[in-house]
Amino acid sequence: MALSLDAVAQNLLFHEAHTARSFTDEPVTDEQIHEIYDLIKPAPTAFNISPLRVTVIRSEEAKRRLLAHVAEGNRPHTAAAPVTAILSADLCFHEKLSTLFPVYPTLAQDVYGDRDAREADARLNAALQIGYFLLGVRAAGLAAGPMTGFDAEGLDKEFFGDGRQKSLVLVNIGRPSEMAYNPRQPRLDATEAVTSL
Amino acid sequence: MALSLDAVAQNLLFHEAHTARSFTDEPVTDEQIHEIYDLIKPAPTAFNISPLRVTVIRSEEAKRRLLAHVAEGNRPHTAAAPVTAILSADLCFHEKLSTLFPVYPTLAQDVYGDRDAREADARLNAALQIGYFLLGVRAAGLAAGPMTGFDAEGLDKEFFGDGRQKSLVLVNIGRPSEMAYNPRQPRLDATEAVTSL
Repeated sequence: MALSLDAVAQNLLFHEAHTARSFTDEPVTDEQIHEIYDLIKPAPTAFNISPLRVTVIRSEEAKRRLLAHVAEGNRPHTAAAPVTAILSADLCFHEKLSTLFPVYPTLAQDVYGDRDAREADARLNAALQIGYFLLGVRAAGLAAGPMTGFDAEGLDKEFFGDGRQKSLVLVNIGRPSEMAYNPRQPRLDATEAVTSL
Repeated sequence: MALSLDAVAQNLLFHEAHTARSFTDEPVTDEQIHEIYDLIKPAPTAFNISPLRVTVIRSEEAKRRLLAHVAEGNRPHTAAAPVTAILSADLCFHEKLSTLFPVYPTLAQDVYGDRDAREADARLNAALQIGYFLLGVRAAGLAAGPMTGFDAEGLDKEFFGDGRQKSLVLVNIGRPSEMAYNPRQPRLDATEAVTSL
């Protein structure tokens, strides 16, 4: 049996890709980030709610504000990365549903009138999109260094003071340096993770 | 500018892929599901916790147990799909950390002694892996029909009575039939989802 995805693409996205800890000085442009988003945006979310928001931290001032909320162990490589993206869930995604899901005109009222319902679906579906996005970074020929070691509450106050967005993952993005990679840790076998009934 | 991922792979995974509503009778084997898992398992999770578990529902008896907890609108195409996978988060992932993250031998005690801490990280990281898995289904040349319209509490009692696993997404998997696809809904432009600072 063989996958439909060709071996080069399998290696680029999965087998030979690694979480990167350090990067070259080559800049990462907004055009590259847009290209990554445009690649992954067709991938599915529930009711097409598309709650992922990407905040690209590049300027010195924005980096300074970010680093104050990043766990100490993640600070040096985050400070040195060309860009860091805050990957967050927009709890007000329902304001765009008349565009995103016009086939169900009362979706926003019927399902998402309640903030808790919005938050649960925003977090789950933004996380799916973060999975797509991390592979999209690799599809662009760049390396991703995702992190959850940060103070989400403090970071959200700093960058999303209106309470609309909840940060879920930070990701450093750039060309990997020669010393970028730690050895890969073992993964579960399919037989450990998959059960059939 | 161009992505590193070739155009055929871009189309297979993103541009030309659609959520499928109906499938041919061609069976989906455990080998195919294992192959999908083996493809996506290197993609990153925090501390390599790898909390995604896949429960493949194929037998008539298992389908019957599943359908009782699926939203009415999702029942007909779920009943007809060759297989449905329950994609769940294992809250007891910490039991495997001595294998998965041996470089930090006290991780399970230091970070994941508390069930709430485990549940939050299990849900977020399993959702990232679900993003990878849905693309993996497409990489295998199959179509995915993911759904969140189901009674998670009831389904978890039925299939995960010991409380270890929380179901997050169901996904029908198979070869798409000729009538599999609804028209694609619009997506957000990169300029709407991406901000630079």
